[in-house]
Amino acid sequence: MTSPTALRPTPRYLSAPALVRLVQTLGVPTCLREMAAAIRADFCRWSEFDKSARVAHHSPVGVIELMPIADAQRYSFKYVNGHPKNTHEGLPTVMAFGVLADVATGAPLLLSELTLTTALRTAATSALAAQVLARPDSRVMALIGNGAQAEFQALAFQHLLGIRELRLFDIDPAATDKLIANLADSGLTLTRCASTAEAVRGADIVTTVTADKTNATILTPEMVEPGMHINAVGGDCPGKTELHADVLRGARVFVEYAPQTRIEGDIQQLPADFPVTELWQVLTGQAPGRASATEVTVFDSVGFALEDFSALRVVHEAAKRLGLGQELDLIPELDDPKNLFGILRARRAALRRAA
Amino acid sequence: MTSPTALRPTPRYLSAPALVRLVQTLGVPTCLREMAAAIRADFCRWSEFDKSARVAHHSPVGVIELMPIADAQRYSFKYVNGHPKNTHEGLPTVMAFGVLADVATGAPLLLSELTLTTALRTAATSALAAQVLARPDSRVMALIGNGAQAEFQALAFQHLLGIRELRLFDIDPAATDKLIANLADSGLTLTRCASTAEAVRGADIVTTVTADKTNATILTPEMVEPGMHINAVGGDCPGKTELHADVLRGARVFVEYAPQTRIEGDIQQLPADFPVTELWQVLTGQAPGRASATEVTVFDSVGFALEDFSALRVVHEAAKRLGLGQELDLIPELDDPKNLFGILRARRAALRRAA
Repeated sequence: MTSPTALRPTPRYLSAPALVRLVQTLGVPTCLREMAAAIRADFCRWSEFDKSARVAHHSPVGVIELMPIADAQRYSFKYVNGHPKNTHEGLPTVMAFGVLADVATGAPLLLSELTLTTALRTAATSALAAQVLARPDSRVMALIGNGAQAEFQALAFQHLLGIRELRLFDIDPAATDKLIANLADSGLTLTRCASTAEAVRGADIVTTVTADKTNATILTPEMVEPGMHINAVGGDCPGKTELHADVLRGARVFVEYAPQTRIEGDIQQLPADFPVTELWQVLTGQAPGRASATEVTVFDSVGFALEDFSALRVVHEAAKRLGLGQELDLIPELDDPKNLFGILRARRAALRRAA
Repeated sequence: MTSPTALRPTPRYLSAPALVRLVQTLGVPTCLREMAAAIRADFCRWSEFDKSARVAHHSPVGVIELMPIADAQRYSFKYVNGHPKNTHEGLPTVMAFGVLADVATGAPLLLSELTLTTALRTAATSALAAQVLARPDSRVMALIGNGAQAEFQALAFQHLLGIRELRLFDIDPAATDKLIANLADSGLTLTRCASTAEAVRGADIVTTVTADKTNATILTPEMVEPGMHINAVGGDCPGKTELHADVLRGARVFVEYAPQTRIEGDIQQLPADFPVTELWQVLTGQAPGRASATEVTVFDSVGFALEDFSALRVVHEAAKRLGLGQELDLIPELDDPKNLFGILRARRAALRRAA
């Protein structure tokens, strides 16, 4: 009964240090560009994906989510938590990992860290959206919230949009210190501001990426100027918003996947029939992006499983190309698939022989 | 901003070979007993769990599923596929792995193989159900389907129920050869039969664990004798059943989680109001188990996320006790949780220093 072609599915494992090496080898701009290209390509074949809402388990202190998605060839899921109080214990607020698998056999192909990868794919998605929504002559971006995601947003908009100057504000001055130190040699002009209003004044693009788990109003209507593009990244779960509702009412609003964004995004503040456009519709030419130089646009980003699918494809290909990662013996090696019990005996017999 | 108590969540990793060592060290009977005890304990606090239906992605050749569940302390999920044609390519039909995580922080605690573990927890659940549903004097079990799960069912019923004789049938004689070889030194009397009817005749318990993904009728009404307990394991997804509908109609039927079993179990053949009892109700004394020595009982088992939760708890504790497994650097190590970007710079600086 032994199959002559006994296979053992050994997924590649990309640890957090391996992913750091991958990003350092390629460089952050290249990683962002490759991810943006993959996300664009996958969003442009939107209907090919079996999409489902994420599965969330809420507790009083946080949430643990699974985000699965598949096309005819590949399946992926991400595990991700959100625990705002973790930083007080020296743990990250968000920790993530994910799996890419083969739809034809169900075999896992890749297990990868996704904490760093999520920051990269979120920034790549923001820049991709801004490519079709921001004014082409955008050079100045306000960056409100200078925490864990901020440098990735900064570099994505520098390299994929042509942003040259960042106007920075965070309620924690140490966060801005950290960002300025990290981006000192980036070539970006970094201007520290005393308030959100000061940072936003005169900016072409406003990126909000704050962490407070409240219905905040980081951005109010009087701050918004004609022609601005607002990249709203931080409002991404029920009860966590960043924009005053009138900012949304005064703009054209773009989302990743409307059924999810209406629950998790800034538009959770508005009625269920508030008009929005899905990003894939703009990328495929089925809906217009920015209509004029004075229109205000909002990308109400919450993060969608398809972006992780694209990111996992990119890091999987890069890891194979660069020889990074290791084989993971997660699945038993069976000479005969019907003889699972045999692995308990085979080893015992082997041990007896060795003794 | 550096936290003085910077922590790095390093989940323990139990590979397939590590799990084999764990089972060999404890012995299969002890593993089955510990899992049955954990499953019983967890089923007895049924209302404490946040239960959800599994999330399935179907393709023409198979299915990939995620099975999450949580109580106030621990969260778990299992990844599992089902691809009947895999055996033709030398791959297992079912491959599984899972994660146990901390609800308070979202940190993953354990990544474990679950292919072997699933076979153990399925057999432990079957035996646990039979302890309250089969006649206490049961000594002879028919085992229909002698594939990957069969030995685990055999040993669970031997050690947890007191079964002494197995009457074996499989449409593939080589599968029965394999089972007889694997259990030669088990102490069980093994009788090869020429048909399902011959195997079932006179048995106290009938276990069906066949693999065909069809609406089969392995067991028909004329084979069923008064007082039998039927442990129906193989009918576990839409379109895959083993029992003739009249076998179910003539018995009292017990299930793990009715909303899932009505879709996936043998009772998918019956109306949505067909009366069933959930196993936890019997284990907690809220519903009667077997009522008489002549009643026919059916455990329509499909596998529920809570059993994997219990199994992950057991292997996690055993691995810690035995010092098995290794640390997995799946989550980035951050001195400052707000400085995710810093891991890209810290390494680069360290490399420069080393050069």
